[in-house]
Amino acid sequence: MKKAALLYEGKAKKMYATDDEQVVWAEYIDQATALNGAKKVAIAHKGTLNNQISGHIFNYLKTQGIESAFIQQMSETEQIMKKVQIIPLETVVRNLASGHFETKFNVAHLMKFKQPIVEFYYKSDALDDPFINDAQIVALDIATPAQIAELKQKALTVNTALKQFFADIDITLVDFKLEFGLDFEGNILLADEISPDTARLIDQKTGKSLDKDVFRKGLGDLRPGYEEVLKRIEDKERAINVLG
Amino acid sequence: MKKAALLYEGKAKKMYATDDEQVVWAEYIDQATALNGAKKVAIAHKGTLNNQISGHIFNYLKTQGIESAFIQQMSETEQIMKKVQIIPLETVVRNLASGHFETKFNVAHLMKFKQPIVEFYYKSDALDDPFINDAQIVALDIATPAQIAELKQKALTVNTALKQFFADIDITLVDFKLEFGLDFEGNILLADEISPDTARLIDQKTGKSLDKDVFRKGLGDLRPGYEEVLKRIEDKERAINVLG
Ligand SMILES: Nc1ncnc2c1ncn2[C@@H]1O[C@H](COP(=O)(O)OP(=O)(O)OP(=O)(O)O)[C@@H](O)[C@H]1O
Ligand SMILES: Nc1ncnc2c1ncn2[C@@H]1O[C@H](COP(=O)(O)OP(=O)(O)OP(=O)(O)O)[C@@H](O)[C@H]1O
Ligand SMILES: [Mg+2]
Ligand SMILES: [Mg+2]
Repeated sequence: MKKAALLYEGKAKKMYATDDEQVVWAEYIDQATALNGAKKVAIAHKGTLNNQISGHIFNYLKTQGIESAFIQQMSETEQIMKKVQIIPLETVVRNLASGHFETKFNVAHLMKFKQPIVEFYYKSDALDDPFINDAQIVALDIATPAQIAELKQKALTVNTALKQFFADIDITLVDFKLEFGLDFEGNILLADEISPDTARLIDQKTGKSLDKDVFRKGLGDLRPGYEEVLKRIEDKERAINVLG
Repeated sequence: MKKAALLYEGKAKKMYATDDEQVVWAEYIDQATALNGAKKVAIAHKGTLNNQISGHIFNYLKTQGIESAFIQQMSETEQIMKKVQIIPLETVVRNLASGHFETKFNVAHLMKFKQPIVEFYYKSDALDDPFINDAQIVALDIATPAQIAELKQKALTVNTALKQFFADIDITLVDFKLEFGLDFEGNILLADEISPDTARLIDQKTGKSLDKDVFRKGLGDLRPGYEEVLKRIEDKERAINVLG
């Protein structure tokens, strides 16, 4: 597999073509952004953390029967993925109230919902990723009712698996964002990344955030949290490998 | 039927109790507000226009098999309604893009949707009536999935009837807001008002707004538009009565 032309330079990753037209090469960059890119800072070593964490998570999801675009890691900061046509919706799943949900509905921080909430945001930097409902998605021809139902079902399945994955390493999964795309056969496939950039993770031992909230809220260096997440994932996998 | 204690002084109506605990007495006031009450102006004669328009519309809906809380007009500015426990959701139906929808999704003014859009807003002045999706409504215990489905179905039925009602008097129904409540038997019943305060209406002859947008946009006196709506409704009913 050969890395080819740069396709897209995002806020968290550079996406390259490869010699296989069905495969993209992602390079996780050392940068953190918030407020839709308005706040942007270089953070050495961050790319390698997210690249590895996201790879571990997608590998785990595969063991749980959940397919994704992730193929394999290529270096500390790089991975290859099946190329998909991203559906322009960010799919958010919430287990506990946090972030702008708290202020929007004036509920207590980390209030538990009677059932997980799925939300969609229309991926458009120009429009500032507006919150969108099912009827709007259909009326604006962004996705069909059947696709919306599949996105919700897949997101909730990922949630069930991820909650367990993180509970096993004493981390509470508060909420997270997923992206899905259409693969070359037209199937909906989980894509992009799952990392402390895209999920809110709370250490059950200390109550501290192990995710991008540390950066968003200006609480200091985000790396110790990300490193802790990676370390716990690796420790757990090592334990499983020893047993297995 | 006797008017009793003032129950609630809203932005558009004063709601009174009556000697029947299942009936409320609404007095439409001479006031227009926008921006969740931040813009507020006294407008003589407005109460009588909305009281009459809303009464005509609910009477028409009844002929189309759509029940509502409206019972009957009591004076030029007053009407009695079945008392309901309002479900704290504003149900919006959109046929054509207008208002904040246009800017939110950067679509052309009056763009036609492939199908009508139903949206819910959580009725809370303190929270500024936030846009809410089905999963949030359920998770926050505001309504059940079955109730949500019934609200949508009822809203779309009202839309079909109202589009025809206004088309018959050369008016385009762009969008509107409904409120529903639970009656004493626990059934969901259409309530509140339907008027140029709560619907966007465009004159097919002139292309001009005949609704509160005239006030929202500071385009002058809203009354000529409201008077035109009432006049066309009355003319149509007179024609039907002559025929019938
Ligand atoms: N498997 C995939 N195939 C094709 N594109 C992908 C795949 N996974 C992710 N992408 C897209 O590649 C880009 C990844 O870059 P990054 O996450 O840095 O973007 P971003 O700055 O968040 O921008 P965007 O608003 O486009 O998501 C995103 O546009 C993402 O949707
Ligand atoms: N049939 C009914 N029974 C009980 N309450 C009703 C009924 N119809 C409407 N209401 C409620 O009575 C009030 C009507 O007053 P008005 O329309 O002036 O309120 P408002 O200023 O819009 O405030 P709100 O934010 O409460 O809707 C609203 O709270 C409305 O929900
Ligand atoms: Mg991204
Ligand atoms: Mg009102």
